[in-house]
Amino acid sequence: MTSKKKNTGALSEKKGVIQPDSLNQNVANKVKASRKKTPQLSEIINGLTEGNKASLSRAITLIESTAIQHQNKAKQLIEACLPLANKSVRIGITGVPGVGKSTFIEQFGKLLVDRGSKVAVLAVDPSSSISKGSILGDKTRMEALVNESNAFIRPSASGDSLGGVARKTREAIILCEAAGFDIIIIETVGVGQSETAVHSMTDFFLLLKLAGAGDELQGIKRGIIEMADAIVINKADGENIKAAKLAKTEFNRALHLYPAKESQWTPKTLLSSALKNEGINEIWELIEEYINKTKANNYFSEKRKQQNKFWLTQTIENRLKHDFFSQPAIKKELENQLRALDANETTPFEAAETLLAMSSNRTN
Amino acid sequence: MTSKKKNTGALSEKKGVIQPDSLNQNVANKVKASRKKTPQLSEIINGLTEGNKASLSRAITLIESTAIQHQNKAKQLIEACLPLANKSVRIGITGVPGVGKSTFIEQFGKLLVDRGSKVAVLAVDPSSSISKGSILGDKTRMEALVNESNAFIRPSASGDSLGGVARKTREAIILCEAAGFDIIIIETVGVGQSETAVHSMTDFFLLLKLAGAGDELQGIKRGIIEMADAIVINKADGENIKAAKLAKTEFNRALHLYPAKESQWTPKTLLSSALKNEGINEIWELIEEYINKTKANNYFSEKRKQQNKFWLTQTIENRLKHDFFSQPAIKKELENQLRALDANETTPFEAAETLLAMSSNRTN
Repeated sequence: MTSKKKNTGALSEKKGVIQPDSLNQNVANKVKASRKKTPQLSEIINGLTEGNKASLSRAITLIESTAIQHQNKAKQLIEACLPLANKSVRIGITGVPGVGKSTFIEQFGKLLVDRGSKVAVLAVDPSSSISKGSILGDKTRMEALVNESNAFIRPSASGDSLGGVARKTREAIILCEAAGFDIIIIETVGVGQSETAVHSMTDFFLLLKLAGAGDELQGIKRGIIEMADAIVINKADGENIKAAKLAKTEFNRALHLYPAKESQWTPKTLLSSALKNEGINEIWELIEEYINKTKANNYFSEKRKQQNKFWLTQTIENRLKHDFFSQPAIKKELENQLRALDANETTPFEAAETLLAMSSNRTN
Repeated sequence: MTSKKKNTGALSEKKGVIQPDSLNQNVANKVKASRKKTPQLSEIINGLTEGNKASLSRAITLIESTAIQHQNKAKQLIEACLPLANKSVRIGITGVPGVGKSTFIEQFGKLLVDRGSKVAVLAVDPSSSISKGSILGDKTRMEALVNESNAFIRPSASGDSLGGVARKTREAIILCEAAGFDIIIIETVGVGQSETAVHSMTDFFLLLKLAGAGDELQGIKRGIIEMADAIVINKADGENIKAAKLAKTEFNRALHLYPAKESQWTPKTLLSSALKNEGINEIWELIEEYINKTKANNYFSEKRKQQNKFWLTQTIENRLKHDFFSQPAIKKELENQLRALDANETTPFEAAETLLAMSSNRTN
């Protein structure tokens, strides 16, 4: 008998009411989902707080995820890690390709691990999302450091904007700190505003340089020297030593152009040879001196507060702009106003008033 | 009989309805105001477009007014002037105090007047609103130029923000152009972002410098050299000549650090002695060369379009920020969020979400 056959015979029955399930499936699914989810997340959190690097990796992957269903989990994860975070020293390191950044970070990281620290290396590289390359992506780099149990190396997060990459990196810092890493190194290359972003999320900003006439002007021009707490002339070995010493003098001259820093710290220029493992120890001693000084004068915590406020404000401002200019009506009227501007029929201020009035009418 | 006496006697009357005035006073006032206003405004506009400097002065005073009742008038004024505007060459001139800026502008202005131009000199000086001084306020300055019938000199607008000062200056440019001034000089000192503002409202940006070792680094640091279309080493006379020639070489070296400009213009360094009226003519020839080149390659009008877009966007962004952060509820919650941030109980991104959610709830 098919279901299509009409029940018109003597033995036909009226279709009865289906007995409701004794179990509410919605509730059951939620319970199932939470049983499935909660242990996973708590597993990650437990592993992470015990210093398990695989858990830390999974945690970072979770916060880097752009999937909607991961966002709540990521939020819970951050919330669980926050009380354990903020206790590290965060060091930003920048320098153009070829300056020997990875060799330097490897030697520097090994020194710190040998001194008993747990070292995490993260990267901010806004170019990687375009070129699909990554400054820490090359697996053959930092081989000695990567095998240390107390070192954690993570290639740069990808993202469609520097703001997005910076947010993920800042959240990764929190996770690394909760996992017990007490020194976080953030590596970047001089692309766009990435150095400013890294400077705004670290306690100490180190600029790696090569000896080379005229190079100091580039750094001044781009505002990098102004941000540096120390400049290290790398590859100061062999025949380079003389040029490196000359560069040191030049950079010290450049550093004197700037007014005293709020940190009361006077930036210094040092020489190093990462290849020969020379001068690395002195750099760490300088950073320790900086930490002691700025913790004593309270600048250390003050700077972190300022950084928090900076990222809060930046996030809001970017969203306000995005929300305004992405309204279809505004987009259309903006084109009209730009046309009127090009024809000298209005002023930028008058055009702005028109657009702003449209948006406020919409929401009122 | 006082009004307080009760009308209880036999002769008392019920209070009647007051006969309405046969004239609507609101309408009458409006008509009166418009009778009073319209001739005044049209008088200003007529005077201004005939090139009357007193009318131009009154017009600028009107657009500079912060009084609400002047804003509509100012708007009408700008609208009337716009079709006559945009036909001048706008030259930005900057340099530290002591560089000889006013002597230079006086000689330069006189040269242009003698060549048949009508020259207006405006100033952007955000410091004047704080110090109550003004870079063009000194009446004894530019005496020779001020007495020329084809020259108009106006001290800087005051305002509580650089944005406000910049807007007033840009509107004053329109008025000067409508009054037939074909060369507009905008003077500024290197305070805060004033040079960037002036660069964003002029066609040609001239940097005045003195001979002096190390000075070029300051300009590079602050991004001024990058903006310059020409650098003029002033006071290149007497014993200074040797140092000035050396400075010229240094600045040319600095200029070569920068990539080619979108204008396809290669910035040049020149020498001048405003005091001895030497080198001024060469500077104007250079500016003419720039104008011819950029008009030929269409950059001249393209740059003005970009500037309009810049000011439009800036105005909107500033207003969005101001409107958001000035909400009392947001102000209060911002304090809470900053406290939570300082206590490491939240992240800047989470705090931003909370604040943004508050604001969007309010308007929905």
